Amino acid sequence: MDNIEAYLDANRLRNQDDLFELLRMASVSTDSQYQADVQRAGQWVADQFRSLGFMTEIVETKGHPIVYAETPPVQGAPIVLVYGHYDVQPPDPLDEWVTPPFEPTIRDGNVYARGATDDKGQMLTHIKSAQAWMETEGSLPLQIKYVIEGEEECGSSNLDPFLQQYEDRLEADIAVISDTSQFAKGQPAITYGLKGIVYFELYLEGPKQDLHSGTFGGAVSNPVNALTQMLGKLVDKNGRIQIPGFYEDVVELEQREREQFAALPFSEDEFKSKLGIEDVHGEQGYTTLERRWARPTCDLNGIWGGYQGEGAKTVLPARAGAKFSCRLVPNQDPDKVRDSIQKMLEELLPPGLKMEVIHHHGAPGVVVSLDSPYMSAAAEAIGKGFGTKPVFIREGGSIPVVTAFRELLGIDTLLLGWGLDDDNTHGPNEKFSLDDYYRGTKASAHLWQEISKIIRG
Amino acid sequence: MDNIEAYLDANRLRNQDDLFELLRMASVSTDSQYQADVQRAGQWVADQFRSLGFMTEIVETKGHPIVYAETPPVQGAPIVLVYGHYDVQPPDPLDEWVTPPFEPTIRDGNVYARGATDDKGQMLTHIKSAQAWMETEGSLPLQIKYVIEGEEECGSSNLDPFLQQYEDRLEADIAVISDTSQFAKGQPAITYGLKGIVYFELYLEGPKQDLHSGTFGGAVSNPVNALTQMLGKLVDKNGRIQIPGFYEDVVELEQREREQFAALPFSEDEFKSKLGIEDVHGEQGYTTLERRWARPTCDLNGIWGGYQGEGAKTVLPARAGAKFSCRLVPNQDPDKVRDSIQKMLEELLPPGLKMEVIHHHGAPGVVVSLDSPYMSAAAEAIGKGFGTKPVFIREGGSIPVVTAFRELLGIDTLLLGWGLDDDNTHGPNEKFSLDDYYRGTKASAHLWQEISKIIRG
Repeated sequence: MDNIEAYLDANRLRNQDDLFELLRMASVSTDSQYQADVQRAGQWVADQFRSLGFMTEIVETKGHPIVYAETPPVQGAPIVLVYGHYDVQPPDPLDEWVTPPFEPTIRDGNVYARGATDDKGQMLTHIKSAQAWMETEGSLPLQIKYVIEGEEECGSSNLDPFLQQYEDRLEADIAVISDTSQFAKGQPAITYGLKGIVYFELYLEGPKQDLHSGTFGGAVSNPVNALTQMLGKLVDKNGRIQIPGFYEDVVELEQREREQFAALPFSEDEFKSKLGIEDVHGEQGYTTLERRWARPTCDLNGIWGGYQGEGAKTVLPARAGAKFSCRLVPNQDPDKVRDSIQKMLEELLPPGLKMEVIHHHGAPGVVVSLDSPYMSAAAEAIGKGFGTKPVFIREGGSIPVVTAFRELLGIDTLLLGWGLDDDNTHGPNEKFSLDDYYRGTKASAHLWQEISKIIRG
Repeated sequence: MDNIEAYLDANRLRNQDDLFELLRMASVSTDSQYQADVQRAGQWVADQFRSLGFMTEIVETKGHPIVYAETPPVQGAPIVLVYGHYDVQPPDPLDEWVTPPFEPTIRDGNVYARGATDDKGQMLTHIKSAQAWMETEGSLPLQIKYVIEGEEECGSSNLDPFLQQYEDRLEADIAVISDTSQFAKGQPAITYGLKGIVYFELYLEGPKQDLHSGTFGGAVSNPVNALTQMLGKLVDKNGRIQIPGFYEDVVELEQREREQFAALPFSEDEFKSKLGIEDVHGEQGYTTLERRWARPTCDLNGIWGGYQGEGAKTVLPARAGAKFSCRLVPNQDPDKVRDSIQKMLEELLPPGLKMEVIHHHGAPGVVVSLDSPYMSAAAEAIGKGFGTKPVFIREGGSIPVVTAFRELLGIDTLLLGWGLDDDNTHGPNEKFSLDDYYRGTKASAHLWQEISKIIRG
């Protein structure tokens, strides 16, 4: 690996220049006025692969194309699927950018540009690492299959059909994605667990029009009263979710996980002051990190009904609604939770109201075993690339592509984030540390080596 | 009374003409473009009193003037305070009127015009009845004090100051207001009870901005969750209000009241179909009319928080709010209820949220004893005017002027409604039955006679 490390040192600026070239393309996927730039960015990524001699395809979809590339097969070595995206979020609000979003600029060791960390910079580390291998060793120690899409920021609606269509060619042992963050500056992390989700919209309808609350109150079901009575029962005051059977399949945290979380440099005071809250609050018996990363939750996302204007209006509203969702942890079945919630709502519905429940798509939680050899390989590679051993963390959010890889391709994903929490991924002044770009590339180069040592199967 | 009845028969059309004259004035108090018409209507009412030789005053206020008139004192007889208003609601939506709102038109025995029933037609019956007495008997059998305001439809904000300023001159034994409805067509009613009210706005504030529900859910108090948990506890599933001490001072319905309500021609099926609901729902152990008229209630009037747009957004909202109110029955103290609610909310507030509670003005419920001689006098008069004995009903709403008469002048009010439920009081095509205008005037003439028989004190 010395050759490769030396190559990466020598080509640090060249790799930076390439990143800047890609960052200059305003590949905003959600806005059709950027259509040409999205195309150019896809082409640019494909050209990277082609210049390394990889079998490369630009797969047209109903939306923006997916760039697919394969390195040559390596007998006996695992196959890695690398996912990333070349599209970016819109740059608005433009007037809050210190320097223009598509003119990458270096300040304090960071490159400022839309897409710097999400995901152009992070994605490119896995191409530049392969380039280092090719240009020093002439080949890679394992086969890599790259899926770089152009619609991550507008819903990835053409990704699942692609995965289904290319299922056979996408056969792999493990997926690698760098589109998350380190735990803190100087403390790289591997995210080994994500929560799943079930999402609901609930509509209650009472009288055909708003009524006078004096003339009709107390005799007619009030949809807003009912909404609070029904949804107020989802979680008790100790933060315990009251949906029947909800905790039945929950995988409890292992002791070593709790110890690892507890050992992390997490300051609850900083957390509170950053959010502007006086106190944290959640399920009793768990720490803040445990609640965020590894315990199922239930949050109302929105609610509405009746009079929302100024002053007092004595109305008994005709209708009301809410949106709410549960975050699920591994082994909870979204369909089972959904059915249980549906049943609970039906039982709680008072007489005289009509109810409509809309179920949005659900997804199960995922977790990669800490004992997996791929996890050890990634930890080893990160240690070598960053000079610091990674910590093992989980995430409260869902990453749909990770679920898709699990469900459609049957593989786990290593989430190796090179970014930082304060990279402003969807806001103005997005940035990416150039040191981390360099370290991430080195870690990636080591990752191919470490994974290649694993016996397939 | 034969003379007076004959006079009213003979002058039926003349009284109608006078009503039409008043209805042609677009006295919309809430809209300054109608300012001149409001003035004209007040003048017109004052002229009515002056033409009968009553001591008449146009009392200027910060808003529209109050017309005050007194008939001569009658030794030993009670003094009646008549309240009404000469202003009207705005006529919008104009294109839904069959005939223009300020061109009174007769169809099917009704006069259609804005203000026909609310309150010009009803109010005028108490002037025309006095005119009948004056023009046949030369005097009234008791003293009447008229307070006819011009701001009822825009908040009556200058009425209380007037009542306080004129307190001594307004000394009276009983107030009479005709600004409500009969129980049903052909079934006149006396409303002997009104509910009071306490009204709240509740604001909860959590993190300083909306958060990702995956990353922070379960660890940070969600203001919308909290709102449903707190307000969902106000009323239980049996319609019983859970505010501590809430029922302590409630005056239970008397057996004869329950019997009277039960004997009314009230069809629950019609009620349900009119409101478009499949079932009624309320406090267990009480009928629909009992719930509406004589049991305290608690209704959420509005609620909001988080994402209200289309589709799924996984946000943990930064803030949420609601408006809610309790309707109170006689003997419940609004201040005590308010304090109890405040305390309950403080106890239910989860950690990590800030709460603001805004208390709007409260008012107690009022009820006039069924045994009051004034009640008997009114029943007798209505029986004679309408040819049908009135039923005794209560109302779930509040009428602030009734509370003000009770609190500032220490007198009860007889609510003698000549209107009908379907008179479209605040909507297009407001109407008033000309038969009921005539019968109401006759009942009013009898009322002066019947009340005059009561020994003061």
